[in-house]
Amino acid sequence: MEFRIEAQLGAARAGRLITPHGEVETPVFMPVGTLASVKGVPQETLEELGTQILLANTYHLYLRPGAEQLRQLGGLHRFMAWKRPLLTDSGGFQVFSLSQLRKVSDQGVEFRSHLDGSSHFFTPEKSIDVQRALGADIIMAFDECTEYPADRERARHSLEMTARWAERSKRHFESKKSGTNNEKLETENSQTLFGIVQGGMYADLRQESAQRTVEIGFPGYAIGGLSVGEPRALTEEVLSAALPLLPADKPRYVMGVGTPEEIVNYALMGVDMMDCVLPTRAARHGLLYTSQGKVNIKNAIYAKDEGPLDPQCGCRVCARYSRAYLRHLYTSGELLAPSLNTIHNLAFYLDTMRSLRHSIKLGVSARAAQ
Amino acid sequence: MEFRIEAQLGAARAGRLITPHGEVETPVFMPVGTLASVKGVPQETLEELGTQILLANTYHLYLRPGAEQLRQLGGLHRFMAWKRPLLTDSGGFQVFSLSQLRKVSDQGVEFRSHLDGSSHFFTPEKSIDVQRALGADIIMAFDECTEYPADRERARHSLEMTARWAERSKRHFESKKSGTNNEKLETENSQTLFGIVQGGMYADLRQESAQRTVEIGFPGYAIGGLSVGEPRALTEEVLSAALPLLPADKPRYVMGVGTPEEIVNYALMGVDMMDCVLPTRAARHGLLYTSQGKVNIKNAIYAKDEGPLDPQCGCRVCARYSRAYLRHLYTSGELLAPSLNTIHNLAFYLDTMRSLRHSIKLGVSARAAQ
Repeated sequence: MEFRIEAQLGAARAGRLITPHGEVETPVFMPVGTLASVKGVPQETLEELGTQILLANTYHLYLRPGAEQLRQLGGLHRFMAWKRPLLTDSGGFQVFSLSQLRKVSDQGVEFRSHLDGSSHFFTPEKSIDVQRALGADIIMAFDECTEYPADRERARHSLEMTARWAERSKRHFESKKSGTNNEKLETENSQTLFGIVQGGMYADLRQESAQRTVEIGFPGYAIGGLSVGEPRALTEEVLSAALPLLPADKPRYVMGVGTPEEIVNYALMGVDMMDCVLPTRAARHGLLYTSQGKVNIKNAIYAKDEGPLDPQCGCRVCARYSRAYLRHLYTSGELLAPSLNTIHNLAFYLDTMRSLRHSIKLGVSARAAQ
Repeated sequence: MEFRIEAQLGAARAGRLITPHGEVETPVFMPVGTLASVKGVPQETLEELGTQILLANTYHLYLRPGAEQLRQLGGLHRFMAWKRPLLTDSGGFQVFSLSQLRKVSDQGVEFRSHLDGSSHFFTPEKSIDVQRALGADIIMAFDECTEYPADRERARHSLEMTARWAERSKRHFESKKSGTNNEKLETENSQTLFGIVQGGMYADLRQESAQRTVEIGFPGYAIGGLSVGEPRALTEEVLSAALPLLPADKPRYVMGVGTPEEIVNYALMGVDMMDCVLPTRAARHGLLYTSQGKVNIKNAIYAKDEGPLDPQCGCRVCARYSRAYLRHLYTSGELLAPSLNTIHNLAFYLDTMRSLRHSIKLGVSARAAQ
């Protein structure tokens, strides 16, 4: 993987990730396709929306359809018929969400499936092996996501664990890189492993975690454990502390954020990649992002509203359907409602990032012309 | 509305319905969009599949979003952003399905909403008024759908009621035709009313019903009350009795049928139009129609099947996704499953009718060349 920075405006950068499955323009928002599908949206529509990279969840795919099956089917790209870049998380975040169902040791995490209660053990090595079977272009080190609130001691313990697991993730990844056991997997030996910064909400611990992760050395760095319930000001404080310690020439990924305002704000702070279930999950609840603010489509005021959801939006939903129709679909429980709503929300997020990239590049040109 | 027969092969005919919203090639299968949406499939995909006409259900739309609201929004076409032809049923079938919630008199049917228990009264006049508000190209007379089994006396009583209601439907439709109360409704004064043949499973009663409906006079005739639980041989027997009594130059519509084999069979018997929830409902249950027979996609044998659902099918689902992926979506309860499954099943049904039309025309050419 290669990362090129093409324009810089203050802390913000516009760049390009070059992966085995194509290029990704940054800053980028990555829609979430938990189980190898962005809920309700076919892959061809994701392409039409200009989706450049998707995120899929290792924990969920490990349980269904299973890592071995995905390996036999030639990996996630083939399985889900998606030729563009993919990123998988390490499973850490999901496993740690199963608070009642897990047991953590230095070796790894024992957890019970949320589906059938069956017992599983994830280690950094296991996470890497599963992610190798899935074959995403970018994969993540296995980390311990610190819960919020967490006291300083707990955050330090979690940071130390994450650092040891980052080393083990990298060592295992490097040792496997040269050997292939799957002819079908196009990305075998061409995956890229990112490290993850933790440290709770303590700025100095975040800085220490960033330094230690950079010392281990990765071609890209993520900041995890944010947007876990803390106030937004704290998120920003923690990011401000950690970001400057990450190498400027490597991609920076903030996991699990955010609202449209947040993703723009973080991109302006120098973040290159973000993912979040917010646009897709909110859409399924009838909460739609528009250039005129948030729309709760089930609201009775839309019952006779013949206008498009967002007159500024060029997506296929806004081009064709009225608010009255979208409200009817939602209040009637029609299957088309989550689908159309998700298409629009993703269009809004992707357009937001597209505009921002454009602005960064234009801002640079304007300065150059002065 | 105009109906042109372009080729005839035995009893089968290939023709063309010319409606205010465009032409429909017959024999045609009409997908069902109960609440102004074919569940899980956006209108642009229905167009892409070659859907020429959709059916929507008056009873459901009368309850949600309501006839007055649809009138104010300019009718169903505008509301659902569908520019091609539409047909609405009279609401009779749905009202009669509410067996515990209805009370029938010669005047009409009192029923309770399946949504909130509220009380409503449908008469032939009311059904026509609601269908005028909806504004479909083809609308249906209000009939009493005879349940199965029903004794001869019950079937005769139902036939008589249907005949009186057919007269009232026509009279009311004609009286309203010249007056418009809605500038927005493009199809105002250009709708076409079809009559409906009933008579239970008694061939002679079906013939009597057909004769009496033809005497009242409609530009098209439907045969209702079939596929209500009777054996298929009986359906065919009843159809064979009634079809020859319907005018050859008018479209013939059999309501609520059927399997792929049945729709081909009935078209060969001289039926021009059919509708059924089978392809869409079966799809939502993972039952898929293919050129190689029925596929139950949740079956474990498909877990590692990398082939397309139907190698003979050119739909976007078969062009892109594997059986293994479709099975995963279905067994994981992903929203994309009912959507992709429905797209394929509709493609199969629509292709079946397209091939049949082609065959009828080719058969005629072959005979002409002899």
